[in-house]
Amino acid sequence: MRTVSENRCFGGVQGVYAHASEATGTEMTFGLFLPAEAADGPVPVLWYLSGLTCTHENAMVKAGAQGWAAEQGIALVFPDTSPRGADVADHEDYDLGQGAGFYVNATEKPWAPHFRMWDYVANDLPELLFAEFPLERERQAICGHSMGGHGALTLAMAHPGRFRSVSAFAPICNPTGSDWGRKQLRAYLGEDEGTWARHDASRVMEEKGFEGPVLVDQGADDQFLELLRPETLARAMATRRQEGAFRIRKGYDHSYFFVASFMEEHVNFHAEALWA
Amino acid sequence: MRTVSENRCFGGVQGVYAHASEATGTEMTFGLFLPAEAADGPVPVLWYLSGLTCTHENAMVKAGAQGWAAEQGIALVFPDTSPRGADVADHEDYDLGQGAGFYVNATEKPWAPHFRMWDYVANDLPELLFAEFPLERERQAICGHSMGGHGALTLAMAHPGRFRSVSAFAPICNPTGSDWGRKQLRAYLGEDEGTWARHDASRVMEEKGFEGPVLVDQGADDQFLELLRPETLARAMATRRQEGAFRIRKGYDHSYFFVASFMEEHVNFHAEALWA
Repeated sequence: MRTVSENRCFGGVQGVYAHASEATGTEMTFGLFLPAEAADGPVPVLWYLSGLTCTHENAMVKAGAQGWAAEQGIALVFPDTSPRGADVADHEDYDLGQGAGFYVNATEKPWAPHFRMWDYVANDLPELLFAEFPLERERQAICGHSMGGHGALTLAMAHPGRFRSVSAFAPICNPTGSDWGRKQLRAYLGEDEGTWARHDASRVMEEKGFEGPVLVDQGADDQFLELLRPETLARAMATRRQEGAFRIRKGYDHSYFFVASFMEEHVNFHAEALWA
Repeated sequence: MRTVSENRCFGGVQGVYAHASEATGTEMTFGLFLPAEAADGPVPVLWYLSGLTCTHENAMVKAGAQGWAAEQGIALVFPDTSPRGADVADHEDYDLGQGAGFYVNATEKPWAPHFRMWDYVANDLPELLFAEFPLERERQAICGHSMGGHGALTLAMAHPGRFRSVSAFAPICNPTGSDWGRKQLRAYLGEDEGTWARHDASRVMEEKGFEGPVLVDQGADDQFLELLRPETLARAMATRRQEGAFRIRKGYDHSYFFVASFMEEHVNFHAEALWA
């Protein structure tokens, strides 16, 4: 692992690090905010998964999360959204290939060799983080925006006992029923739609749910409502009697201005679960 | 004036607008955050002047100011840092020409036709803002970062009665004595150093000071300390017996992580003066 940068931030350190990932077979870059308390021992950690076109950097500089995390004494980790590099497959569309990993393990050509973001976020990066930094493996939570909201929800439900809480800003809720999903799941996982189901947050929510609290915020003026399909997740949460809240926010769109506006509430929501 | 974008943000609206500027003779772009209270009538306004290489956008997306401004019910305006365009003079160095207006009115070739950022921020943009938006002309404050801190301090001291308070993050304090200043003042204003003096915050502070409170934050690990010369301003403030505070922040550098870390304190500092 090598240090790309470290900046003092809200009394802690906002770092950027790169490491060779076994899962993706590439060098991967991530951001990590450690609050001041990390100097004295392990702290809880909140994962933030980003959306289409993002790198590790977008949320790190635009979401305004560090101040609230510092107040709560918790760390933040910002993974990249795909493998990258000249030797890594890509596509001319913004929503496929590099910057659009969709948090799955690709099985199809040309994506299979490197596009293993599920394994990267679920296994590879955690191993590194808990070995290298003062983070509490027993106190993890996860959130994300858009494609990252999809990733946060599906990863949280697939790993019972790992995350104490999960939240999402304008998540892709129903990728098996949307052009933000069908295109990518077909490309990465192939024609057999049976392999897609475990990557559909609404379907997994309806079938098994999440053992902790779930928080979802969705802007009413989001320009991508037809692609996100929030109604499928709202219905699944209600059908499942899932502990949590699904909220529609009048006037807000899909941007980071929306994310930043409600970041305090999301960090505090997770902090309550992390410190319980 | 045309609307480039408007996004709901912390209960208000983060807008981006473009207009034909008489001062610069170009189209200029600026950001404006209006809190929810602006729907009911004029609100106070805090100017934020950005640093070298920045556009109107950097602070708008990275400084985390909107949340605090929303809490205080004040607007934020984010001007660009120079005229721009294919027909506008430029230079290969990052610290001269486009993105580096230095908040002066250029008198020298090739800069004189468009590089009139002093007039733009002092006269042109205010006329537009107070005509088009619900902002209180009697309740203005100003802040800035690096080159923008230099601009905020010099503009505030040159316009007694206009701004109730002024603050700066890591300002260029002594441009007449620094490579961040001598190069640009010579290029824009010519060889006669007598014309430079009113653009040197430390010298103006020592000669006339500011009638309201002044707040300056400077990171102790700033990578540009030799260019910023904070000691000149600290000395001038103390010599002048200027009301205010000059603070050194251990461990912080020159980045927006530093700015964001102390934005709450700066917004609240201005709000106290604006609502007095």
